[in-house]
Amino acid sequence: MQDPAIEEVLQPLRESVRLQSEHVRRLKERGALKDEIVQAVVNLQIKKDDLREKEEELLRKEEPFDRFKMEDLLKRRFFYDQSFAIYGGIAGLYDYGPVGCATKANIIQLWRNHFILEDRMLEVDCSMLTPEAALKASGHVDRFCDYMVKDKKTDECFRADHLIKSHLEKKLNSGKVSEELAKEYRDILAKLDGFTWQEMQATIEKYNMKSPVTGNDLSEPLPFNLMFPTSIGPSGLVPGYLRPETAQGIFVNFKRLLQFNQGKLPFAVAQIGTGFRNEISPRQGLIRVREFTMAEIEHFVDPKNKRHPKFHYIHSYEVPLFSACNQLNGGETERHEVGEAVKAGLINNETLGYYIARVHEFLIKIGVDPRRLRFRQHLSNEMAHYATDCWDAECYTSHGWIECVGIADRSCYDLTQHSKATGVKLVAEKNLDIPRKVTGIRCIPDKRVIGMQFRGDAAVVLKHLDGMSEEERIKLAKQLENSGTVEINCNGRCFAITKDMCRTEQFSKIVHVEEFIPSVVEPSFGIGRIMYAVFEHSFRIREDDEQRTYFALPPLVAPYKCSVLPLSAQPEFEPFIECLTRSLTEMNISHKIDDSGGSIGRRYARTDEIAVPFAITIDFDTLRFPHTATLRERDSMTQVRVHLDELPAVIKVLSNGKLLWEEVTRKYPKFEQQEASRKQNGA
Amino acid sequence: MQDPAIEEVLQPLRESVRLQSEHVRRLKERGALKDEIVQAVVNLQIKKDDLREKEEELLRKEEPFDRFKMEDLLKRRFFYDQSFAIYGGIAGLYDYGPVGCATKANIIQLWRNHFILEDRMLEVDCSMLTPEAALKASGHVDRFCDYMVKDKKTDECFRADHLIKSHLEKKLNSGKVSEELAKEYRDILAKLDGFTWQEMQATIEKYNMKSPVTGNDLSEPLPFNLMFPTSIGPSGLVPGYLRPETAQGIFVNFKRLLQFNQGKLPFAVAQIGTGFRNEISPRQGLIRVREFTMAEIEHFVDPKNKRHPKFHYIHSYEVPLFSACNQLNGGETERHEVGEAVKAGLINNETLGYYIARVHEFLIKIGVDPRRLRFRQHLSNEMAHYATDCWDAECYTSHGWIECVGIADRSCYDLTQHSKATGVKLVAEKNLDIPRKVTGIRCIPDKRVIGMQFRGDAAVVLKHLDGMSEEERIKLAKQLENSGTVEINCNGRCFAITKDMCRTEQFSKIVHVEEFIPSVVEPSFGIGRIMYAVFEHSFRIREDDEQRTYFALPPLVAPYKCSVLPLSAQPEFEPFIECLTRSLTEMNISHKIDDSGGSIGRRYARTDEIAVPFAITIDFDTLRFPHTATLRERDSMTQVRVHLDELPAVIKVLSNGKLLWEEVTRKYPKFEQQEASRKQNGA
Repeated sequence: MQDPAIEEVLQPLRESVRLQSEHVRRLKERGALKDEIVQAVVNLQIKKDDLREKEEELLRKEEPFDRFKMEDLLKRRFFYDQSFAIYGGIAGLYDYGPVGCATKANIIQLWRNHFILEDRMLEVDCSMLTPEAALKASGHVDRFCDYMVKDKKTDECFRADHLIKSHLEKKLNSGKVSEELAKEYRDILAKLDGFTWQEMQATIEKYNMKSPVTGNDLSEPLPFNLMFPTSIGPSGLVPGYLRPETAQGIFVNFKRLLQFNQGKLPFAVAQIGTGFRNEISPRQGLIRVREFTMAEIEHFVDPKNKRHPKFHYIHSYEVPLFSACNQLNGGETERHEVGEAVKAGLINNETLGYYIARVHEFLIKIGVDPRRLRFRQHLSNEMAHYATDCWDAECYTSHGWIECVGIADRSCYDLTQHSKATGVKLVAEKNLDIPRKVTGIRCIPDKRVIGMQFRGDAAVVLKHLDGMSEEERIKLAKQLENSGTVEINCNGRCFAITKDMCRTEQFSKIVHVEEFIPSVVEPSFGIGRIMYAVFEHSFRIREDDEQRTYFALPPLVAPYKCSVLPLSAQPEFEPFIECLTRSLTEMNISHKIDDSGGSIGRRYARTDEIAVPFAITIDFDTLRFPHTATLRERDSMTQVRVHLDELPAVIKVLSNGKLLWEEVTRKYPKFEQQEASRKQNGA
Repeated sequence: MQDPAIEEVLQPLRESVRLQSEHVRRLKERGALKDEIVQAVVNLQIKKDDLREKEEELLRKEEPFDRFKMEDLLKRRFFYDQSFAIYGGIAGLYDYGPVGCATKANIIQLWRNHFILEDRMLEVDCSMLTPEAALKASGHVDRFCDYMVKDKKTDECFRADHLIKSHLEKKLNSGKVSEELAKEYRDILAKLDGFTWQEMQATIEKYNMKSPVTGNDLSEPLPFNLMFPTSIGPSGLVPGYLRPETAQGIFVNFKRLLQFNQGKLPFAVAQIGTGFRNEISPRQGLIRVREFTMAEIEHFVDPKNKRHPKFHYIHSYEVPLFSACNQLNGGETERHEVGEAVKAGLINNETLGYYIARVHEFLIKIGVDPRRLRFRQHLSNEMAHYATDCWDAECYTSHGWIECVGIADRSCYDLTQHSKATGVKLVAEKNLDIPRKVTGIRCIPDKRVIGMQFRGDAAVVLKHLDGMSEEERIKLAKQLENSGTVEINCNGRCFAITKDMCRTEQFSKIVHVEEFIPSVVEPSFGIGRIMYAVFEHSFRIREDDEQRTYFALPPLVAPYKCSVLPLSAQPEFEPFIECLTRSLTEMNISHKIDDSGGSIGRRYARTDEIAVPFAITIDFDTLRFPHTATLRERDSMTQVRVHLDELPAVIKVLSNGKLLWEEVTRKYPKFEQQEASRKQNGA
């Protein structure tokens, strides 16, 4: 994006978007006909798509990438692979093998240190099984849907929007459609994201779309809830779902967490765990799966004060921002200092800004290429109605820009919803600058009379009286005054309250604190997607040998920190291997011993493949006093000779990022022989 | 158990078990009537129960424990609590709050280091969603059931055996039953574990048992599968379950893992993850839950050679073993060296012995009280039919002895089952000492002819021919020879194979390797149960103050390694806090700052409650040069004075167990003042 040659190609496309965007704005200003505006917006979307496609095409040229080769390596060395393959496999489910699992565990540990430890967040670990009521309140039961169409004969299902898209794209790419029809198709593609099911149905009918597999007729689009349903307990009467996100577990525990934090705001709660999403037709490997690891932070703040206590640390940190405005006007991603972006109102508040900077730091640390990372602001029509501002950390991959982290200001939506559904107050308190006098109506029930009258139902009635709003209390007082009796409705049952059961009185008091529902800023990480981006960004092919592919993962993330290779199967090497592996283990350094046959070069290639950054080779020189071994670095393939007893400590600091390889090469003598033997043997 | 006073009380009970056990043996030897033997076995069980009950009663007296106080603390400081409490809660589901979650994360990290890193195991991370076919093969679909009875009016469900047990125990405890009836009840209780559903039904009817909640009639016992069912994908055609254990994910990946290990045996695979079990009526807090974290190891070995390469490390390690033999004869738990126990055949093989020792080490390290830990061998009637030997690590708690880790030799059962179900060979190879000549029949299909004849089905036919057993090939050869045509059955469809499609020939060859299905030794850890035992074993009440309760968790496991407490709210203290927290964070030391008001004594009590082992107090002396602070240890409440810049490093080595508090008290000057101020203020 920074490349001037690329910018030159993109310039006319950007200009075209900008002009069209201005045109739309002018139409709206002068109150043009709705149809005219809609058509202009569609044209704008088409121009934006053109710009995006060209941009991605140029990026692909700049960073040539062989996805087939990478996927072959990931599969061959079992980084991850399809689950239950021996049973035919299940789409959208993946198992992580030893290398993938260790990489994932390292990324999670780094996440914990980078976010939780650094900001002393409260980490929780909540149930995945979730009763329906909680997900009804959060909106997932009603709105977490995609539309699908079914093959009328085989019952095979397709996601309706995906089906339409690929049908039309195929036609467009065939080059066999008239210019007029092509325009129609592009119009639809531009509008597809906002289609109702009726519009999808009309499109499918109009162009006579069939099942892409069998050619059979298709059903109408049906809504399909993306949560996995189950039933909790033996009665079959407690419907539940597997959680679609970890966030809700935090919201329902808000009271306990606020108390744990001694009632003080702001505070942040984090959770790392599994989420589930019953995708209609999963694809794109790790990017769209049915079971995934997430890491979410819910940062609770006073809605009137979204400042962040550590904002000064990142005030002048630079981040690549693709603002909503630039998206509309065909502009580009621009680098901004976070402090300046918040001050200018580009980023809504300090807390959002703080997390954008911290997320950027984190992604770079674990191996995302900074040139293929941007923060894209949601357009107002993308955001949930309650959200204030939202930025996605997007990584560029061979699948295009993919969302890896969403950072959203969700206002007080979730707490409000759970509070409404349960009747439990989910609020924080703050001291008022000036104490305030409040007046109101108080309800004083006579528990004895109520108890005698309602027996087993007394508790329900008392709870209802206690939970009434000020408005309801005023109404109750008035009715009791007027007619001496009031009917109240508790969970669908009626109870008659009389004057002897409940007194009401006016009161006034001075209050020093104010209750409020906190806002929440939520950074939400898809660990699988982040890993996938890191794999793509770190995939390498050796210049001198097309067959030698490897992952240049940062040592911090690498699954094993070093490998230990005896040059050959000499029994004399064994005590050295044994001693070395003991010291490495004592220092918690994960390592792999490869004492198989095969040339040392071939074994270096094998250890490179699984991203091991450092290799120690024990050879005949090791047997001589003072005992030394070769230490080789994966990316540069350079080697040095180090004393055996120094090695574990050197690997330790190298692998936690506190020492760089260049410093090692300056300190220790260079070594050439073994890499030479690789060239001799071939790889 | 070691206490001679206790042994004296137990002696007659042990003797009585021993005599009865001998009696049973003699009856069996002389071929007594079945009824007579059954009655003698029931009496043996009753005597064993008496012994167990007395033993537990004495243990409870020896270790007085206030479960109510502990549960109050766990709840009040949100170690863990019921999930979805604001929605009324769901039985058997728990959320871990900040302290519980950090403790759990630490235990898991220690587990990783202790097992995976130490033995360079392959760690994997597999899907929880599991298609039915895989769990059908493992036996879970058919056999993972409990029996339940339903209240005929309200549909409330009860676990049938639990219902019978509590009904009879209540009667027995009421003291209102005749001696004869009491004997009948005790007979049933002794036999209950082995009851069929018909026997349970007969018992419920005979004693006219009703719903304990409503008094309504009960249904017949119905089998209830304990897996949570769901459906994968939109079609509703792929039934699945949430995995009941993590092990199956390892078995289905066996081929990939063996390949990753370059075909070599033995090797161990580990997985840490969630398992699900839809308990009919969960109870006992963390001990019986519906969603739980497990850590499982599958160690694959040659069934003819179950030696362990690192056995010499633990050869003379002592473990408390409660053998099957001692259980039958009223004997006690005895300490044995693992090497001696394997040699004597008490433990079946080296690999099992190795894990018993390693599990013992681990549990002690994380805070299980060694006096309340034993390894109990399964009796032959407890084990699955395929298992060779099985030992449970049991911890004694206020709920009795609870199984925390199961260590089982599962032979080659699982791989065999998945292999049968999928037709995929799950085998390893080993070199033969002496190459062997084998003869057999070979099948040579003519792909062209088969292709022309069967078109789209050709692949199915070829696959079938390729997958035939030696027996089937012999049959095929004979039939082709005799009649020139053979019908084969592929997935329920018939194909006629003729001579021109498939030639058969005799062959003989020399083989150097042999294929075999590996055996597997499986240590399986219930993390929640282990945590619960650690909480009970580390719960303490201060001698001088009944209200001050805390957890004496080992620093390795403690959720926060230290707390930082400014003596009072002086702004001068802030830069010191800031500087300290930065250094602690850089060294990855989790800590908690408590700058709330309240006396220092009260804040110490609060930090003790959540098991923080060390507290740093910043006071007015800190302001003076050289800057120092107080360091206090939780269990002894002793304090020393340490230079501020030394503190993070001291905490680091203290909290990873590499430095003991006694050494710190010897090195640094003692400090008295602040703990005194606690006494003055009260707690």
